Amino acid sequence: MKWLSNAINSPDQRYLLAAVTRQQQLTKPAGSLGKLESLAVKLASLQSSASPSVDKAWISIFAADHGIATSGVSAFPQSVTAEMVKNFADGGAAINVLAKQHKAHLEIIDVGVACSLDHLKIIHRKVAAGTASFLHQAAMSEAQLAQALSHGKEAVSRALQHRSNLFIAGEMGIANTSSATAVACHLLKVNAAKLTGAGTGLNHEKTQEKALTIQQALYKFSDIEATPLNALQYFGGFEIAALVGAYLAAAQNGLVILVDGFICTVAALVATKINPNLKPWLIYSHQSQEQGHKIILEALQAEPLLDLGMRLGEASGAAVALPLLNSACLLHQQMATFEQAQVSQS
Amino acid sequence: MKWLSNAINSPDQRYLLAAVTRQQQLTKPAGSLGKLESLAVKLASLQSSASPSVDKAWISIFAADHGIATSGVSAFPQSVTAEMVKNFADGGAAINVLAKQHKAHLEIIDVGVACSLDHLKIIHRKVAAGTASFLHQAAMSEAQLAQALSHGKEAVSRALQHRSNLFIAGEMGIANTSSATAVACHLLKVNAAKLTGAGTGLNHEKTQEKALTIQQALYKFSDIEATPLNALQYFGGFEIAALVGAYLAAAQNGLVILVDGFICTVAALVATKINPNLKPWLIYSHQSQEQGHKIILEALQAEPLLDLGMRLGEASGAAVALPLLNSACLLHQQMATFEQAQVSQS
Repeated sequence: MKWLSNAINSPDQRYLLAAVTRQQQLTKPAGSLGKLESLAVKLASLQSSASPSVDKAWISIFAADHGIATSGVSAFPQSVTAEMVKNFADGGAAINVLAKQHKAHLEIIDVGVACSLDHLKIIHRKVAAGTASFLHQAAMSEAQLAQALSHGKEAVSRALQHRSNLFIAGEMGIANTSSATAVACHLLKVNAAKLTGAGTGLNHEKTQEKALTIQQALYKFSDIEATPLNALQYFGGFEIAALVGAYLAAAQNGLVILVDGFICTVAALVATKINPNLKPWLIYSHQSQEQGHKIILEALQAEPLLDLGMRLGEASGAAVALPLLNSACLLHQQMATFEQAQVSQS
Repeated sequence: MKWLSNAINSPDQRYLLAAVTRQQQLTKPAGSLGKLESLAVKLASLQSSASPSVDKAWISIFAADHGIATSGVSAFPQSVTAEMVKNFADGGAAINVLAKQHKAHLEIIDVGVACSLDHLKIIHRKVAAGTASFLHQAAMSEAQLAQALSHGKEAVSRALQHRSNLFIAGEMGIANTSSATAVACHLLKVNAAKLTGAGTGLNHEKTQEKALTIQQALYKFSDIEATPLNALQYFGGFEIAALVGAYLAAAQNGLVILVDGFICTVAALVATKINPNLKPWLIYSHQSQEQGHKIILEALQAEPLLDLGMRLGEASGAAVALPLLNSACLLHQQMATFEQAQVSQS
């Protein structure tokens, strides 16, 4: 897993300054495009380009099951993971609609769904048929962790081969808010009650039970050192580990990342703890409804673009935010300057 | 101006209920698409359609000058109105880029720019070469008000001829935040200091001076009854009146409206005071940086979709939000149901 620490470039200050200058010259009051201006500047500095672009977005959905799912932590049965993966492959899920709308390339990777899946459109990289329950033992072995991380890296290779200029990852896995919550709690040393949310739709009572279950596991492994890789191995899921691997590999290869909701933000937290140089490469798409999301975003000093009350996962929040990044780039590229348009300045 | 009070239909409750039911059947936890769900339901009820759609958006930009511009209330000289109108016509402004990105039809209407404009792509409906300064007299005559309102109505006719399914209006007019602020203050009976903002970029001191100038005019006409049409006639601009006419005509003709920023929201306030049945037809795209916007949105009980720190006008905020409405419609239309995808429910 040595590759996780490979170098990540810093944003290019020359392109940053050039982009700031250009934004001042475009035919609008300075600053009047708000976050669309800072996004364009950020993208210019990350892509080392005077014309930043996100017109070729790539979406990898990692799917896996969780041992903890049998402990009543989700509103849906575990079978839904496989059923939804088939739905992705058949084109019927929210992310299919959004990927089509925005002409993004979408791929589905089985990194650990409990049952065997047979569909031409699924990429088969099953680490195991679901993780072990972190109530009883580490969710995965070190070898499994390494494998899951590398599947994330491999997805980035495919995105690069297709000359994508923006990387989005999503996840599917019944009970993965429990897994992500436990990972974040272990890493940030906070109680489960603080971060545990309703996931796919638990009521208040069931959410409290879920928090107690997670807290029990946190106690059990409280002597395990709070490193990012330990957190992933003991409490994570194969899809969460794949997200971590993908984020690090994307930044290592100069590919800007648009982060989805709670699970992806926890993966971003883990990945930035592994390599803090990742931070500038992560753009946060939205504030979800999941209770812990706001806290994790604050821990990352992240300012998400949207707040639409979404809580679906499967990269849907990132996909909804994608046209805003595209607007930022297109405005930066295509607007006339005061000089070109012969417009007086203030 | 009798047409302003023509009937506006209420949202269709049958289509509303059918859309709510469909949202429950789509392959996602109920409610997990947040505002995208409520938007789809709203659009279904307004368009009386099981497949609401905003794929043919229409953008009318109304431009005009303001007598008050000579009183130092803007960071930019008055000549910028005409210069920016030419920039719109030449395709170099932010709204050109965004309209192109989202394949929306864009038209530019001169309803009162101070100088004469000669460009094939400008629709000429000049009421006068700018309003009078409301520091000294009513901004416009009743006849001019009627004319400006009808130019808004006419824009909606063109949108309907093109079978557009979403109406967006924007504005350009140096000093029009002063005009809109005065209109709103007169109508809501609040002090200018509360609503006056930096517009295109005044510093704190100049913003305070602007508030004093507006307050002076409000005192001068404090005996004028606070009706929506009086507010428009005494303090408004030709482009603001056109926005009011356009919003009422759009709703009268069953065309859903996506509202831009501060100026457009003030026009929406005026229009809903003329005909409260307009309210459900207005979708608010964004919370701008202009100080008074939040207060006007609250007065309208509006919840804008975006908060990106924008303050440009020219329909740019609405255009940035357009793909979110489109996502809401496409998800509603295209997602598979639990039954179709054979996915288990909670």
